[in-house]
Amino acid sequence: MPVSEFDIIEQVFRAKATAGNNVVCGIGDDAAIVEVPTGQQLVISTDTLVSGVHFFPDADPFDIGYRSLAVNLSDMAAMAAGPAWMTLALTLPDNNIDWLHRYADGLFSLANRHNVALVGGNIAQGPLSITITIMGTVPTGQAVLRSTAQAGDLIYVTGQLGMAALALAISSGELAWTGPIPQPCLDRFIRPEPRVQAGLAIRGLASACIDISDGLAADLGHLLQASGRGARIQLSAIPVYESLQLLDRQQIWKYALCRGDDYELCFTVPPHHRQALEQRISQAGCPLTHIGIVTLDPQPGWIDTDGNHVELTGTGYRHF
Amino acid sequence: MPVSEFDIIEQVFRAKATAGNNVVCGIGDDAAIVEVPTGQQLVISTDTLVSGVHFFPDADPFDIGYRSLAVNLSDMAAMAAGPAWMTLALTLPDNNIDWLHRYADGLFSLANRHNVALVGGNIAQGPLSITITIMGTVPTGQAVLRSTAQAGDLIYVTGQLGMAALALAISSGELAWTGPIPQPCLDRFIRPEPRVQAGLAIRGLASACIDISDGLAADLGHLLQASGRGARIQLSAIPVYESLQLLDRQQIWKYALCRGDDYELCFTVPPHHRQALEQRISQAGCPLTHIGIVTLDPQPGWIDTDGNHVELTGTGYRHF
Repeated sequence: MPVSEFDIIEQVFRAKATAGNNVVCGIGDDAAIVEVPTGQQLVISTDTLVSGVHFFPDADPFDIGYRSLAVNLSDMAAMAAGPAWMTLALTLPDNNIDWLHRYADGLFSLANRHNVALVGGNIAQGPLSITITIMGTVPTGQAVLRSTAQAGDLIYVTGQLGMAALALAISSGELAWTGPIPQPCLDRFIRPEPRVQAGLAIRGLASACIDISDGLAADLGHLLQASGRGARIQLSAIPVYESLQLLDRQQIWKYALCRGDDYELCFTVPPHHRQALEQRISQAGCPLTHIGIVTLDPQPGWIDTDGNHVELTGTGYRHF
Repeated sequence: MPVSEFDIIEQVFRAKATAGNNVVCGIGDDAAIVEVPTGQQLVISTDTLVSGVHFFPDADPFDIGYRSLAVNLSDMAAMAAGPAWMTLALTLPDNNIDWLHRYADGLFSLANRHNVALVGGNIAQGPLSITITIMGTVPTGQAVLRSTAQAGDLIYVTGQLGMAALALAISSGELAWTGPIPQPCLDRFIRPEPRVQAGLAIRGLASACIDISDGLAADLGHLLQASGRGARIQLSAIPVYESLQLLDRQQIWKYALCRGDDYELCFTVPPHHRQALEQRISQAGCPLTHIGIVTLDPQPGWIDTDGNHVELTGTGYRHF
């Protein structure tokens, strides 16, 4: 028996969506209605995942569902915003109800953990692709932009870098590797953990922030360019995932700095907020590393252990 | 010289986007930040257009740009919301800069007219498809849902029905037709005019509203089902486009009631608001027709000039 778009919305998504979050009118009308609490600003971001580009067509739909929200949550974290609502635009080649249920289970496994309400969306027929628009809130004036880093601010990254890139390089055969893909790298590649709690923890302390989706070199570059500043980064301080450290130096930097999918945060902090920030991030249970300092000279400098400047040749992930 | 996604965002979209509308942080950060005015609720809707499904792959990108926003504005109108912001998720097979400029010109021709600010988006490589998420505002409690029609309310539609369906049926060869496609039908098919002003005019007067994107029969059916009500509709009262009236009765109802792309509004009004509503819609310069009445019996009845019930066989556009 064929399943219509209305059945899909009712049985798969409406049934699994959580209520709450000041949703006045959710799935099922021409548009959703929500209340943004007084004193809060609305924060909005959109990301698209295309089959064959951002995930393998035969990937587990649970993982696709998880990932399609994770990349959006990472953008909320990078603004120090608390996620609240999302819309889902699904374009599907057919109405495979098993695929849809498993997709929805992956999506809601993450949505429910971070209390994100699905308030609407669209289902269309076409080549598989997923666009989620996420909306969150932040107390007025407390969002952390990428354009507001100041010279002298300390530069931090959360977590470890290069794990997802290592998993992808091994699985694609780009990198010769003895033994299986390290499980933590595979986990990170398949189900990246957006740093939502860390994002909330930097409110009022960090001066600028960005999430690392295209590699630290590219994304820190965006932050510095937007701020009109440069940086001195101590390469030896960068939290490179341990298995990566077995590779030669060029490869380490390629995977840890110039490839994507880390979904860690990189942010800058005025020195007088250093202690408070480290304490808060520690309470959020998030690994944190100080890797450098913002400079007035708008040229990022990557410094090796001998004090020499290193030229990074990778440019980060580009879509064209 | 290749054009990167960053160039596309900067040159094509950021340059053409209008400011204003309480945008605190627009295109260029991890997320946008906007202020929802005090006393207003946030209204959100998402629509996707897929190449080959919702538009011809070789369609003028100006028209695709226009249409991709028009369908979303129609959803705002159906809630009696004032549109304010949008995000754009573009998936493109290549970075054809001429196509992009023309797409953006079409998009902003409508966005600027309705004062909608583009605040963010995503550009991905893949089969051509466009998802716009539109956000608007409405004074708290004044949105018009589809689930709140009451027995005895009068049923209205704006404009004339079947124009876009007629253009599509002629151009596809489905309908034998002598002479060219009537220009008003072609215009309506290519650049539908969302009823934003009419949507604002029904605030505080209409009891329920829906936009007619899948045909009046299907969409009025959704409104009545959501409200748990039925209706008696006088078929002879329905504002059928004049050229359609040359066809036989079955064809008239097929194109005017059971096909999509009208983008008119269908709403219900308590009798004591009748005069005020007609006056306001007239001031908005919008044609308006009273076509029937909401009944307690939850079965829509289509009544012909002899007072007989007519069974409509079309079901409206379905995506699967």
